[in-house]
Amino acid sequence: MEETFVPFRGIKKDLKGRLLCYKQDWTGGIRAGIRILAPTTYIFFASAIPVISFGEQLERDTEGSLTAVQTLASTALCGIIHSIVGGQPLLILGVAEPTVLMYTFMFKFAKDQKDLGQPLFLAWSGWVCVWTALLLVLLSILGACSIINRFTRVAGELFGLLIAMLFMQQAIKGVVEEFGIPKSEDPNQPAFQPSWRFGNGMFALVLSFGLLITALKSRKARSWRYGTGWLRGFIADYGVPFMVVVWTGVSYMPVNDVPKGIPRRLFSPNPWSPGAYTNWTVAKEMLNVPPVYIVGAFIPATMIAVLYYFDHSVASQLAQQKEFNLKKPSSYHYDLLLLGFLTILCGLIGIPPANGVIPQSPMHTKSLATLKHQLLRSKLVDTARKSISKNSNLSELYENMQQAYNEMQTPLVYQNPSSLGLKELKESTILQASSSGYINAPVDETIFDVEKDVDELLHVEVKEQRLSNVLQALMVGGCVAAMPVLKKIPTSVLWGYFAFMAIESLPGNQFWERILLLFTAPSRRYKVLEDHHATFVETVPFKTVAAFTLFQTVYLLACFGITWIPIAGVLFPLLIMLLVPARQYLLPKFFKGVHLQDLDAAEYEEASATPYNMSFGDDNAHSRNPQVDSAEVLDGIVTRSRGEIRHTSSLKVTSLTQTPLEDMKPVCSPRLSQRVYSPRLTELRVAKSPKSPGKGLEIKKTPTPSLHPSILGQTSNGSSSC
Amino acid sequence: MEETFVPFRGIKKDLKGRLLCYKQDWTGGIRAGIRILAPTTYIFFASAIPVISFGEQLERDTEGSLTAVQTLASTALCGIIHSIVGGQPLLILGVAEPTVLMYTFMFKFAKDQKDLGQPLFLAWSGWVCVWTALLLVLLSILGACSIINRFTRVAGELFGLLIAMLFMQQAIKGVVEEFGIPKSEDPNQPAFQPSWRFGNGMFALVLSFGLLITALKSRKARSWRYGTGWLRGFIADYGVPFMVVVWTGVSYMPVNDVPKGIPRRLFSPNPWSPGAYTNWTVAKEMLNVPPVYIVGAFIPATMIAVLYYFDHSVASQLAQQKEFNLKKPSSYHYDLLLLGFLTILCGLIGIPPANGVIPQSPMHTKSLATLKHQLLRSKLVDTARKSISKNSNLSELYENMQQAYNEMQTPLVYQNPSSLGLKELKESTILQASSSGYINAPVDETIFDVEKDVDELLHVEVKEQRLSNVLQALMVGGCVAAMPVLKKIPTSVLWGYFAFMAIESLPGNQFWERILLLFTAPSRRYKVLEDHHATFVETVPFKTVAAFTLFQTVYLLACFGITWIPIAGVLFPLLIMLLVPARQYLLPKFFKGVHLQDLDAAEYEEASATPYNMSFGDDNAHSRNPQVDSAEVLDGIVTRSRGEIRHTSSLKVTSLTQTPLEDMKPVCSPRLSQRVYSPRLTELRVAKSPKSPGKGLEIKKTPTPSLHPSILGQTSNGSSSC
Repeated sequence: MEETFVPFRGIKKDLKGRLLCYKQDWTGGIRAGIRILAPTTYIFFASAIPVISFGEQLERDTEGSLTAVQTLASTALCGIIHSIVGGQPLLILGVAEPTVLMYTFMFKFAKDQKDLGQPLFLAWSGWVCVWTALLLVLLSILGACSIINRFTRVAGELFGLLIAMLFMQQAIKGVVEEFGIPKSEDPNQPAFQPSWRFGNGMFALVLSFGLLITALKSRKARSWRYGTGWLRGFIADYGVPFMVVVWTGVSYMPVNDVPKGIPRRLFSPNPWSPGAYTNWTVAKEMLNVPPVYIVGAFIPATMIAVLYYFDHSVASQLAQQKEFNLKKPSSYHYDLLLLGFLTILCGLIGIPPANGVIPQSPMHTKSLATLKHQLLRSKLVDTARKSISKNSNLSELYENMQQAYNEMQTPLVYQNPSSLGLKELKESTILQASSSGYINAPVDETIFDVEKDVDELLHVEVKEQRLSNVLQALMVGGCVAAMPVLKKIPTSVLWGYFAFMAIESLPGNQFWERILLLFTAPSRRYKVLEDHHATFVETVPFKTVAAFTLFQTVYLLACFGITWIPIAGVLFPLLIMLLVPARQYLLPKFFKGVHLQDLDAAEYEEASATPYNMSFGDDNAHSRNPQVDSAEVLDGIVTRSRGEIRHTSSLKVTSLTQTPLEDMKPVCSPRLSQRVYSPRLTELRVAKSPKSPGKGLEIKKTPTPSLHPSILGQTSNGSSSC
Repeated sequence: MEETFVPFRGIKKDLKGRLLCYKQDWTGGIRAGIRILAPTTYIFFASAIPVISFGEQLERDTEGSLTAVQTLASTALCGIIHSIVGGQPLLILGVAEPTVLMYTFMFKFAKDQKDLGQPLFLAWSGWVCVWTALLLVLLSILGACSIINRFTRVAGELFGLLIAMLFMQQAIKGVVEEFGIPKSEDPNQPAFQPSWRFGNGMFALVLSFGLLITALKSRKARSWRYGTGWLRGFIADYGVPFMVVVWTGVSYMPVNDVPKGIPRRLFSPNPWSPGAYTNWTVAKEMLNVPPVYIVGAFIPATMIAVLYYFDHSVASQLAQQKEFNLKKPSSYHYDLLLLGFLTILCGLIGIPPANGVIPQSPMHTKSLATLKHQLLRSKLVDTARKSISKNSNLSELYENMQQAYNEMQTPLVYQNPSSLGLKELKESTILQASSSGYINAPVDETIFDVEKDVDELLHVEVKEQRLSNVLQALMVGGCVAAMPVLKKIPTSVLWGYFAFMAIESLPGNQFWERILLLFTAPSRRYKVLEDHHATFVETVPFKTVAAFTLFQTVYLLACFGITWIPIAGVLFPLLIMLLVPARQYLLPKFFKGVHLQDLDAAEYEEASATPYNMSFGDDNAHSRNPQVDSAEVLDGIVTRSRGEIRHTSSLKVTSLTQTPLEDMKPVCSPRLSQRVYSPRLTELRVAKSPKSPGKGLEIKKTPTPSLHPSILGQTSNGSSSC
């Protein structure tokens, strides 16, 4: 995106691009049929559970002024509006942790002011929303989103880790408070006797750790050895909400003599009970706010505007990464404008506003990539099977598949020129096949293994449409009606869920991985190289990595520390935003440019594992295992938690061509130990692996034709010296 | 061992053999110096903690007639006597779960008899011990142990799994009972109010699961990435007792308002309190037992005799497996005779007798193998370094090392002819080196990598001595005095330890691995082949494996079920012993001989992982990783839990020589995908891997000389066609 600050230019461009594909956004979603429900429910759970937790948190922190009803309502309302009239339908909106923090600060401030107090808190925060909205609209008109490319890894990952820390802090605080008496409750209830409080706290430990451990285990279900593939996939996709149900069930097990209120459960008014209506009419009270506070509301508003500008744009950016090969245009400016209007709307009806959320937004794109992959795959497999049964040769087979692929493509051609088709893959494959001299032979399954080779022909493509987003938002809205059911969830299960979200957001965060690297014993650092790893591990000296990580850690702790300061705490979004200029102007004075580039790569590039055995072209580890299902492959490609696609610039054997051939030769001799090669391998590992910055990631990088075994004999019969 | 039943022949032979090396048993231990403390403390903890748990269990089941003081005293007393005058000092004695079960049955029976009752229970069980001892002495004199070779895997592993089930049952029962009121206590104490009982139960869940999870994690510390090698080794060796201390500390955290008795702790009299003396004078009361019960005591005595004969011999067998390359002779008959005397002794002073225990006995041998390895290694590394600094050639280097090795050997030459030296390894290595033509060049570290190649020269050898055994028994005795400290351990931590022991005993048990295989999804069974796996996975049809496992499972459940039947329960040892003739005469009628041989292999033979990349001679996975420390290697070789050495008959590339060379050729071409080879690899995997039944396991199987890189050029310069 070019950096231009001509007013309205960004918004106009966004609108023009998205209007072109608006109709297809709906038809495409509807044409996907029942399968659209898989990503929809997946995102619904990922969206609803945190919002309920945040509601619970807000309720305790605002003494009941805001509850899960309001956070759910805001998420649903903003989600529905955004998914219908918003620009980028991949973006998921929700009430996020920073919003909760800001509202908590605002509540504490308002409560202490005798002119405001708790009764006028929502009215005053309505004014904050108004100011915030004005600022957002201004930012959007002036094209502030065109600098989005300067939001590098260092700021985004620090933000991610800060959120993880806040989640974990909440989890710990929540469990500790299960041992105490809640402020708003009557301390004379039997459940608040010391003995029962002790029991309640211990039960909370059991429930929260139970949820945490089982939820973490269930995420890995796809690679379990036991159970059918269907069951494993189901547990991996829905295991976490399922565990919430299971542990809620467990919480009902103790019945004998245990008084009501143990364990403690969600406490929210039903949306139809009289008390729940107070906030919806807050607009009436906004004029009762003293003028000085109306003006003063501008101060938190700037903070929230900065926060939303940053958070909304980064969430949108992560949902539209290059590696997803999206075909429809982005819409940063227009979406920010819409966010402004949504913020006013939320302010006027007294609910906390929603904005673009991480990690749900990239999770949404990823789940739609899985969907598109399934749709394309089943079509192409059918086509290939038909062709083979008609004794087609390889060329005809690809012709037919290309045709089927084109039929699946959306008829519109959008602006995105980088979109990849089946075509170039086809050509390179045929080129290889013809050089092997069997291009005209009838294809059979040994030459073209339908089930596997189709996977290799497909890029990552995303089913870009609006249906899944609007459906999940409607389902979140349905949660408001389902409040009596939701109230059965024990609070301790939610604390466990907070800890789960914190831990789940860590993998894929390079900042976190660098922290771990600092604690890795020097003798074990080679193990990092054996896994997929970021480029910097090989290219940047350890001391530089340590210094950079230390700087970032201190900065993180400063951000975390500031959230603890009662009123200055609202400054924390500013501190994170400050990291963007600091990265651009300050850091280059302390670190070499090439090192910074690797430590703070704009795209997630990483080197593949360097196996000690590297004889075979080890392009993709997955193609070796005949039983890996395609969803597991996608799991590997897309780091689920941050939604980033790993840009594997692998150290292939092809890159070894500059080393003398005789060094590779003893591979044939089984008597020589692998260890002999270690020094050379170390050299190779240290050498910078080639990057492929402009290259989109395919599901399989190199199309590897399944050569007929007889071919092998032909190529090697000549001289077999070893 | 030949099967001979001439009276006294076995005992005489054992005595003769062990007397020859008796002096060296002590001098060898003393010469090891301070290092002997590592295996000593390791075994002490492994021995003491279960015995304390069993004491706690016995106390509840015998209403206080027997406590942890008695079980510890018995373990210490029998351990000290056995380690001094016993035959095989590798065998660890202790009060075991089956003994506890038998004593529980006996208590229940005695209590219900109006002529016995609780007061005469210990006197009556003294008579049971007398009869048991007579039977054991008889068995030992008649040479019953010479049939030990017929005790195959099927019986031993079923016994192991039964013990695991009993442990797990006890863990669950124990935690459940934390919610109730203990029988022997006053139900009006504040700690037994419903609210505190609820809290106590929940706290017990936290403590027991906390111990279980952290203990299981700490066992894997050696392969952690974080922390220094010393710390990782320490945690792996001592993590479990350390965790008992940690969770005991946690149990003291709740102080406010929590009444005494929460959490519940070990309840045992101090050995110096008056009540604790009653049992030691039980011999006086033995004549008060009515004659009919004295005769009747013969019935449980036969059961216990069968149990001890089986348990003692199997524990001894596992501690002396062929793969440990022991140099000193076995002593089955004499040890059984001694066990008879120990049983009488225990019976007369009213404590439950101790016998050889699993898994502690094989753990003991393994820890001594690690010790011997460390001792030999440091000596040889020194020698090699000295030789290299003197510019020796390879031949001289080995000469010097051989000399140093011989110095380390015990001067006595015992009967065991299979003992291996450094010699044959040296010869084969020199052979290879000379064929490579650099035998006379001065050695440097590229040719002989001192730190690594020394490991490859060493067999598994065991520091066979008596010192570690007597010291650990003395330390267990010290626990009796330390009772006031031990009483600080919460019972819930012990329940967690029971679950830990149950889970820890599973890996390495082929019966268990076969049960898991039955639940493995067919599409994932290939993963079993990727790990080290038992031979039967490749050689026996799945249906046969399933049928055999099903038979064994039904048998196991029958054994487990019988322990639930109040009085008939004492028959369970008989049921397990019955498996030995069933295996020999019944099973061959239903299963093919070759299949039975693989499913019930006398030695633990297993095929190595079949990597999909198999170009390099992949003899030992560990030699590839330069940073693996030798203790980790040993961890891999010896399956810690059953103490069995894995007999890796690996599918090496050398075994591929029968496949045409051209099939291996394309290894050189990086363009060809690994996948092409999959069908062939599948064939190889299914093909039976060659066994090496008579061959002792070395630490590294094939000595792989570190060829100088220049050699590679020489051998492959000729024709480099790929």
